[in-house]
Amino acid sequence: MKVGVGGNGKDIRAVWFENGVVRMIDQRRLPNDLTIADLRTYEEVASAIRIMTVRGAPSIGAAAAYGMCLAALREENIEKAAKLIKSARPTANDLFYAVDHMLSELKNGTDPVKAADGYAQITVDKCVKIGEYGNSLIRSGDILMTHCNAGALATVDVGTALAPMRKAWSDEKNIFVYVSETRPRLQGMQLTAWELSQEGIPHAIIADGASGHFMKKGVSMVIVGADRIAANGDFANKIGTYGKAVIAHELGIPFYVAAPVSTFDFGTATGDDIIIEDRPEEEITMIGSMRIAPVSSRALNPSFDVTPARYVTSFITEKGILAPSEIEKMR
Amino acid sequence: MKVGVGGNGKDIRAVWFENGVVRMIDQRRLPNDLTIADLRTYEEVASAIRIMTVRGAPSIGAAAAYGMCLAALREENIEKAAKLIKSARPTANDLFYAVDHMLSELKNGTDPVKAADGYAQITVDKCVKIGEYGNSLIRSGDILMTHCNAGALATVDVGTALAPMRKAWSDEKNIFVYVSETRPRLQGMQLTAWELSQEGIPHAIIADGASGHFMKKGVSMVIVGADRIAANGDFANKIGTYGKAVIAHELGIPFYVAAPVSTFDFGTATGDDIIIEDRPEEEITMIGSMRIAPVSSRALNPSFDVTPARYVTSFITEKGILAPSEIEKMR
Repeated sequence: MKVGVGGNGKDIRAVWFENGVVRMIDQRRLPNDLTIADLRTYEEVASAIRIMTVRGAPSIGAAAAYGMCLAALREENIEKAAKLIKSARPTANDLFYAVDHMLSELKNGTDPVKAADGYAQITVDKCVKIGEYGNSLIRSGDILMTHCNAGALATVDVGTALAPMRKAWSDEKNIFVYVSETRPRLQGMQLTAWELSQEGIPHAIIADGASGHFMKKGVSMVIVGADRIAANGDFANKIGTYGKAVIAHELGIPFYVAAPVSTFDFGTATGDDIIIEDRPEEEITMIGSMRIAPVSSRALNPSFDVTPARYVTSFITEKGILAPSEIEKMR
Repeated sequence: MKVGVGGNGKDIRAVWFENGVVRMIDQRRLPNDLTIADLRTYEEVASAIRIMTVRGAPSIGAAAAYGMCLAALREENIEKAAKLIKSARPTANDLFYAVDHMLSELKNGTDPVKAADGYAQITVDKCVKIGEYGNSLIRSGDILMTHCNAGALATVDVGTALAPMRKAWSDEKNIFVYVSETRPRLQGMQLTAWELSQEGIPHAIIADGASGHFMKKGVSMVIVGADRIAANGDFANKIGTYGKAVIAHELGIPFYVAAPVSTFDFGTATGDDIIIEDRPEEEITMIGSMRIAPVSSRALNPSFDVTPARYVTSFITEKGILAPSEIEKMR
């Protein structure tokens, strides 16, 4: 991804390996400061995952792979390293998968750096393909809308929902992106808008509640990411996605879900089987250490919602563009 | 309205007159502090309207009436007072109407306190009727949803959208209210949740983006206020209302608009003729003096959206409950 406002900066990844050090963008300090964290031990990598210096399942996976790489290079006990890194964010599937993948590669004698770089590169390659397929749907002059951050920060580079936008922009298509701020954690405002501004892609931040208003004014398509897609095409994504999908459907606006094939979970029959994580209410009722809600009011803070497949125009994957009815093909 | 958490406090209004002084809840200090501002001159009242110590068109109207009352009691030039008070918030219709009404009453020799109290009482009486009609739609066990603040703070007392909830609760119906926080200014979190907590009505604050998720889980009805209702039933209300209406429609959830008849503007044919106020982008990109958005990103901040009449189940007014097709009756 470009860093340096306006698309003139250098090109870096969310996490990478350089001269024996794991380097990552400290995502906690965005959008105000671009700080690169340098991590020299697997324990430091585990800690960075835990405290969310790095976030987004694919970026966490790559960070974990690089953590295992550090453990191997320093001739540490890789089983112990695997255990610690896996414990950093207990619910992230990519994290477990990356650590197990590295364990197997290391046991097979693969060079640690080559194994970790290879893991990260596969993630990026998929995003590049998603960008190419998605770009085929975008015409110059289109007005797009996204939600939360399904960008390069979350996926090592390029992004999923943002991949088609990057590709369209680099192909000199004239696009404009509405970015809903994505309360309570503001990943839309603080991460997606930051990525777009670095890339020089025209955009505006809007309150989540303004999504419908701007769709009614005129949006060519909505593109979002997905955390998990059930076998029938129902999918979980950041809270607020479902509402956008319903409004898009009502207005006849195409609604696309950009995600790698690994997001499809054929063990989950429908969206009803997806368990929604409830996050602390303080994400809503507090800003930093300041309480902004009445002391005697409670908040409910589901992290995701589930959007039924019937609201999805297509899934944009690295294998192509699929209607919900075509998911079965991929098994 | 009750103040004092849990419904055990005393009963006060958003603005009232007492011992020669205009008193009002300082709404800028909610929800953390309940402070009563005492105003002794019409200039102080005009200033309180300007700096939003009092907000909500009907409450502003009542404050203006009491400001005119102070001017008359102190034997000031009432034409000059009228001019200053009208200039405090140049777009509020209720403000102009209240000042003109008071000018005419004072010129007719009506006692200033009686005239201003009478003006405020008419507002409250309408809300009480809205509460009674709206309550007829609520059954014990219902789960309600509202948006922004159409409560007692905005309407001297009782509220519009909150009036049916207060009445249902005082009738010992078991209800629960989802309150969407209403970014960017958080009137849902900071004013509506505060009112409900003072009244002891069970509720939870949710992010605006979570409205769809909770409607899908199960909401009996949505009740919102309105800033202006066009002759065809399209209406303007706080940004985020339109999206809620579309989702409610999709899910078959009744969607009610609670507003006094004076909100109907027969000079406005449809929602297309309603001009939407754009507010400063800093309401989105800043929290206090702290910038939370990327420095190179812009935000768009429309204050209202327009919901087409076809999404409205009924309007709850002081004259009764009307379907959009019945509006003509009221002319």
